[in-house]
Amino acid sequence: MAESVISAGLDFISLRLNAEQSMYGRYTQELGVYAKEEAARLRESGQRRSASDRSRTLDLLEYEKGRCAKCRIYTVRCQKFLISRVGEDWIFLILLGLVMALVSWVMDFCIAICLQAQKWMYGGLDSNVLLQYLAWVTYPVVLITFSAGFTQILAPQAVGSGIPEMKTILRGVVLKEYLTFKTFVAKVIGLTCALGSGMPLGKEGPFVHVASLCAALLSKFMSLFGGIYENESRNIEMLAAACAVGVGCCFAAPIGGVLFSIEVTSTFFAVRNYWRGFFAATFSAFIFRVLAVWNRDEETITALFKTNFRLDFPFDLQELPAFAVVGIASGFGGALFVYLNRLIVVFMRKQKAINKFLMKKRLLFPALVTLCISTLTFPPGFGQFMAGQLTQKETLQAFFDNLTWSKQGLAEEFDYMGHSQAWRHPQVSVFVVLVIFIIMKFWMSALATTLPVPCGAFMPVFLIGAAFGRLVGESMAAWFPDGIHSDGTIYPIVPGGYAVVGAAALSGAVTHTVSTAVIVFELTGQISHILPVMIAVILANAVAQSLQPSLYDSIIRIKKLPYLPELGWGHHEKYNIRVEDIMVRDVRYITLNCCYRDLHNVLLTGHLKTLALVESAESMILLGSIERSQLQSLLSQQLSRTRRLEYIRERSVAEKKRLSEVSNPSSEDSNMRASQEVRFQVRSHSGCRERWYALRPFSFSFVGKPSMMPSFLTYFPSPLCVLQIAEWEEKQLDEQVNFNNCKIDPAPFQLVERTSLHKTHTIFSLLGLDHAYVTSIGRLIGVVSLKELRKAIEGSVTVKGVKVRPPLASFRDSGTTGTSSSESEATELHKLWDRHRSISLPREHVPSESDEKSQ
Amino acid sequence: MAESVISAGLDFISLRLNAEQSMYGRYTQELGVYAKEEAARLRESGQRRSASDRSRTLDLLEYEKGRCAKCRIYTVRCQKFLISRVGEDWIFLILLGLVMALVSWVMDFCIAICLQAQKWMYGGLDSNVLLQYLAWVTYPVVLITFSAGFTQILAPQAVGSGIPEMKTILRGVVLKEYLTFKTFVAKVIGLTCALGSGMPLGKEGPFVHVASLCAALLSKFMSLFGGIYENESRNIEMLAAACAVGVGCCFAAPIGGVLFSIEVTSTFFAVRNYWRGFFAATFSAFIFRVLAVWNRDEETITALFKTNFRLDFPFDLQELPAFAVVGIASGFGGALFVYLNRLIVVFMRKQKAINKFLMKKRLLFPALVTLCISTLTFPPGFGQFMAGQLTQKETLQAFFDNLTWSKQGLAEEFDYMGHSQAWRHPQVSVFVVLVIFIIMKFWMSALATTLPVPCGAFMPVFLIGAAFGRLVGESMAAWFPDGIHSDGTIYPIVPGGYAVVGAAALSGAVTHTVSTAVIVFELTGQISHILPVMIAVILANAVAQSLQPSLYDSIIRIKKLPYLPELGWGHHEKYNIRVEDIMVRDVRYITLNCCYRDLHNVLLTGHLKTLALVESAESMILLGSIERSQLQSLLSQQLSRTRRLEYIRERSVAEKKRLSEVSNPSSEDSNMRASQEVRFQVRSHSGCRERWYALRPFSFSFVGKPSMMPSFLTYFPSPLCVLQIAEWEEKQLDEQVNFNNCKIDPAPFQLVERTSLHKTHTIFSLLGLDHAYVTSIGRLIGVVSLKELRKAIEGSVTVKGVKVRPPLASFRDSGTTGTSSSESEATELHKLWDRHRSISLPREHVPSESDEKSQ
Repeated sequence: MAESVISAGLDFISLRLNAEQSMYGRYTQELGVYAKEEAARLRESGQRRSASDRSRTLDLLEYEKGRCAKCRIYTVRCQKFLISRVGEDWIFLILLGLVMALVSWVMDFCIAICLQAQKWMYGGLDSNVLLQYLAWVTYPVVLITFSAGFTQILAPQAVGSGIPEMKTILRGVVLKEYLTFKTFVAKVIGLTCALGSGMPLGKEGPFVHVASLCAALLSKFMSLFGGIYENESRNIEMLAAACAVGVGCCFAAPIGGVLFSIEVTSTFFAVRNYWRGFFAATFSAFIFRVLAVWNRDEETITALFKTNFRLDFPFDLQELPAFAVVGIASGFGGALFVYLNRLIVVFMRKQKAINKFLMKKRLLFPALVTLCISTLTFPPGFGQFMAGQLTQKETLQAFFDNLTWSKQGLAEEFDYMGHSQAWRHPQVSVFVVLVIFIIMKFWMSALATTLPVPCGAFMPVFLIGAAFGRLVGESMAAWFPDGIHSDGTIYPIVPGGYAVVGAAALSGAVTHTVSTAVIVFELTGQISHILPVMIAVILANAVAQSLQPSLYDSIIRIKKLPYLPELGWGHHEKYNIRVEDIMVRDVRYITLNCCYRDLHNVLLTGHLKTLALVESAESMILLGSIERSQLQSLLSQQLSRTRRLEYIRERSVAEKKRLSEVSNPSSEDSNMRASQEVRFQVRSHSGCRERWYALRPFSFSFVGKPSMMPSFLTYFPSPLCVLQIAEWEEKQLDEQVNFNNCKIDPAPFQLVERTSLHKTHTIFSLLGLDHAYVTSIGRLIGVVSLKELRKAIEGSVTVKGVKVRPPLASFRDSGTTGTSSSESEATELHKLWDRHRSISLPREHVPSESDEKSQ
Repeated sequence: MAESVISAGLDFISLRLNAEQSMYGRYTQELGVYAKEEAARLRESGQRRSASDRSRTLDLLEYEKGRCAKCRIYTVRCQKFLISRVGEDWIFLILLGLVMALVSWVMDFCIAICLQAQKWMYGGLDSNVLLQYLAWVTYPVVLITFSAGFTQILAPQAVGSGIPEMKTILRGVVLKEYLTFKTFVAKVIGLTCALGSGMPLGKEGPFVHVASLCAALLSKFMSLFGGIYENESRNIEMLAAACAVGVGCCFAAPIGGVLFSIEVTSTFFAVRNYWRGFFAATFSAFIFRVLAVWNRDEETITALFKTNFRLDFPFDLQELPAFAVVGIASGFGGALFVYLNRLIVVFMRKQKAINKFLMKKRLLFPALVTLCISTLTFPPGFGQFMAGQLTQKETLQAFFDNLTWSKQGLAEEFDYMGHSQAWRHPQVSVFVVLVIFIIMKFWMSALATTLPVPCGAFMPVFLIGAAFGRLVGESMAAWFPDGIHSDGTIYPIVPGGYAVVGAAALSGAVTHTVSTAVIVFELTGQISHILPVMIAVILANAVAQSLQPSLYDSIIRIKKLPYLPELGWGHHEKYNIRVEDIMVRDVRYITLNCCYRDLHNVLLTGHLKTLALVESAESMILLGSIERSQLQSLLSQQLSRTRRLEYIRERSVAEKKRLSEVSNPSSEDSNMRASQEVRFQVRSHSGCRERWYALRPFSFSFVGKPSMMPSFLTYFPSPLCVLQIAEWEEKQLDEQVNFNNCKIDPAPFQLVERTSLHKTHTIFSLLGLDHAYVTSIGRLIGVVSLKELRKAIEGSVTVKGVKVRPPLASFRDSGTTGTSSSESEATELHKLWDRHRSISLPREHVPSESDEKSQ
């Protein structure tokens, strides 16, 4: 019984793989029938099971007849109930949260040990600077090289952040090998090594991927218990929850985690999934922090980077312009970071010579970059000007502390405690150190995140933002030593608050998210700076979004993942473009009464994944769509070797009949004999390689291998035979297609020609479509695919003098790699649109200046 | 020029109203054509304008010829640019935020004055208890009665919270009169009076409505400046942002506001709208708090109910079970509150006698309820046991304070300060006072929120939750006077923290939201209790969601608003039901070649809003859908009086011709004359009331009123005429329908029969559909509307022994009002399903026990 359930579960998995991104419409007939049978079987087995349970219960009742019988029955029922609940969501989510909290904690633990080891080595060798340098440099180089090599060998998919890929997967596109156990191992071990090296890399992005991997694997594991719960929509929902868990247990920030994962991965979010994310992320964050308490790191559950700013007067109203400046500057900084990051990737790709060399020695690039970065941070060297000896965590704690580093006049008596010590340099002021830190870390982070190791950019960017905020805060503190507030009490300025604001703003600008604000509140455990943080984050987003795509979208573009870009801030021009302006009018279609020759021609000319099925070429009524592979199999079936043989046999029968009709009037007898003979003949082919036996009747029986027959027929056709077969094939091609055994998608998505681009985008994003047919009262008139839509959104199409380009888009495009290749498509599209305009809008006469292309 | 833009804008509004909920497919042909013309006109005028601008610029250049010319041109361009930006989203959002912050602040100010006035009256009369009582009671009765009367007269739509209505509107359903200026005025003034009365009512729900009203009105106003930006999708987006603003400026909680509004109003949320909500809510909250600073209420921007708990050790790990208990108990409490609230409404409706009486004296019910509640809170009376003299705000401040009210042994030296004073009673302990407060406020709030005034339930529930949390916290503090933490430092228990947890949990349970957690953080300005709050809120939600719908869904059910219920927590059974199990197979359709008689028959029998258009009854290929009203107009046009007259004229011509052919061979001449005569004849009808003039040619000219003609023909038909017209009508009905001038929705939404209920629900919610056709390779086989879907989700349909009922649903249903009426529909549906099963699943034989109905 259990086995049947398991096999059913596995069947469902394979079914799901077939169905792929079947958010809508992909429900093919055969699949439906199969699923129905399967469901019926499951239901039946379930009923049988419950029947057997019932009978067992009755047995028990009869057997016991005691007082405790009812009790036992109750126990059995409870047990049954519990087992049936194993597949429920909340158990899955608890398990996911638990596993991820453990993974996160263990990883943090290992990273801490790695970093301590480096410090210890460096500290122990303080007699010799050269040895110290070697120790300081070798350690990260080895770790990063190992991480890069390990990931490269085990699963190259584990490289990078993983958020762009998760975004694509959650849109409904299946990326192969991105959710396997191998990738999980590669990502976890690679990430631990990469972070243990002390490079400016982050944990957040990869953790989203790790959590998704964990959810996918757990889902497979859970399906062993309850196969019916295996469902594609459910899996997508669970992946969305997993993304929240990833962020949540990385920063112990459940709310921020949920919001960040929504902003970063979704286009449309189902509110009913909301609780899943919250539930799992909270549980995960809770366990993550409880582990710290149990390990005696903390006294109780608190924030990861606890701050201790005053509550009664967190900031003055007149400080708000300074916070706004932090926000705007962070916006520019964030855009610059994304640009720089992409520039490095593009540069590395374009330099053929470098590229060739690096392709050969794949591990050389990471090793060189690591060497360069760790040399610069070497504390006795240049590192002394940028607090090189501090780890990311220590640096952040220093930025968020409640002291003012630049207290003027009090410099002597001010006691630099703990990590703040590192920021004091005997020669240069703290401002210079901060500026150097920001500049150096900026390019280092942008460079390091291009390394082929599992790594994220969130934490480095967060750190740079905090540094920038601190710089502004210290400047303010130096400027207004007694605070700004004029009446009564002196409230000195809190530079740590500026660091919090800066961190949220810069990370928000790079990722194009607002929820970094929530993440900083949860990270610091204080929400008193809510308004400055929100204002700065929103301003930073406004600036960054108008200049550059988000870091994740930028990576999506670089990797050319199949993702639909968002409509930007000022997307109201999109209401003016209609589907008819962007659709492809030359649709490949097949008709219901078409012959195989048409099929053949259509398959030869087009290269779309699906073809429209219309009633007839005159009516053009859309009936459905058929996958290319289906049509190919139909065609090959029609011209298959089996049918060819069949034909030959029939032909021989006819020949025989004709002969026998001449010689023997009792045709029925001969017919029967002939067919018998034909059977022998057919079987004999493989034996004696002679084709026209059947024409000369003979009487011995021969049992050959039927499976070898077709190969013979294909490989050794006689000249006569080739002609005949060609003739036969021509005849076959003229036959009408029988669609009975063909998987037809009976309800492909249809749009109306007047649908606005905005609405089209919404529908495509909502339903995860990759193409939609444009119909007019049932008649097919065009098709729109993701490609056309992407073009239109990215602004290659102009309509009536309205240039549909987001502000500063040229700056944005100059850095992308795909411009040259898309040029021709855009032109083609443009021609189409021009043609269309001249046809359907004859009464509008406008100067042609509006047609100038914008690229 | 400006006028044309304005009129275009207004046209667009009316267009939008026509298009209604056209999230998908409603784009009718005529509308499209009109929109296109309009857009072309606008574009043209835009071009003309820009051309004139250019020429003006040139003029300027020529005129000045000085150095400052360029400068001027730049200014002009800037101005133009600024004007063109007026319609942009961010300006709209800033205005919205500003207006709402002002409204919120002014309203708070007025409410505070009202409450102070009551206190002052009550305080001034402390010599006479009776007078004091009268003052205490009269004041709220007058205010509530005024509020109820004012709303009733001006706009009854303003009654209640408004969140259920906004939820329905955001789903795409147009509710009339809910977004008008009248409603705005009624809601604002009614709400101010209601809250000023001191009844346990809230501000949040109505504020969501007020903000939406504000956005709708502002949108209308803004469309005067930039008509092109008027778009239905945009308006929905703006309404969603407005909901966030409503919550945000009510509590100065921008993040919580955005999340709460998403959870409460949306099913699927477009992440690209996210920033709108954040932007507007942050701005609004900022202004709201800045107003308080300017008014010298606050020294700087801080939280509304600032707490001051210790940061270093907010709570002990071992306190978590207590927090969990608060959460679970709040879950039950929340469900009970919703149940009680509905029970009261249902009871009031059922009692015919009471109802009749109350309908006559509409203001009596609110007055009586207010009298009852304010009598019980009278401080010298029963109010002394429940801190009756405190306002909601004072009570909440007391609950959140950092003191322990029940410090044992220290009772004497413990100084009850401020509002905590009210909780000390000479005879009874603080625990008893808290218990009485909770019980009394519980039913009072449930009762008060049913009053026909603008009011919400969030704040009262929040208050009760805080009281309950405080009760648990005080108990814990009494139980562990030195705290639980064992090693080293003593950390006493903070009862205020429990109050925060309880408030979030109970309000989360009633509204089925998780974001109340964020709201309390923003309200209190502290996030240190994040994990307890999250755990309690999630547990409360889990309990409450399995027992009762949310308060807003409950109101939606009571009001029978057209809203699709959510899929609940354990919705995995929904994967087993398919569309074919729930669809209606007996679809009303019309064929492309049908005659008007068919149209007539179809219109007579069915009563659906739209009808399917198929190619022919044999093929059943779905071509589109037509609205009922369109068909009715087609039919009435065919049988219209104009056409009837036309017929009569033609007939007379024919008659004449026949006659003239006999008398006069020159037929052309007579024909012309005849037609002239007929014209006279037609015009003469209204004058002399004689029908068959035309048959007897005469020669005087008569100018009657053509508009009176048809009425004459209808009102005074001669017996002969009636017969003839009946015959004519019969003939007309047999003609084939001409669909050329008919608005056809060319792409109604299609589903496949195998689509699961889960997916169907997703698609309906995503696209805001109200019906979808079920097709099989282009052929129409059924239709699913919201009604069927709602039935299926609410569990009236069982499939193969799987009872599709959420846990404890019977308890939930017992309270709803709609059960009896839905019974018959469910049976009908069931029959359908049975029939279907016997047809399409013949090989599955199951015992009929699974068919037992669950209701």
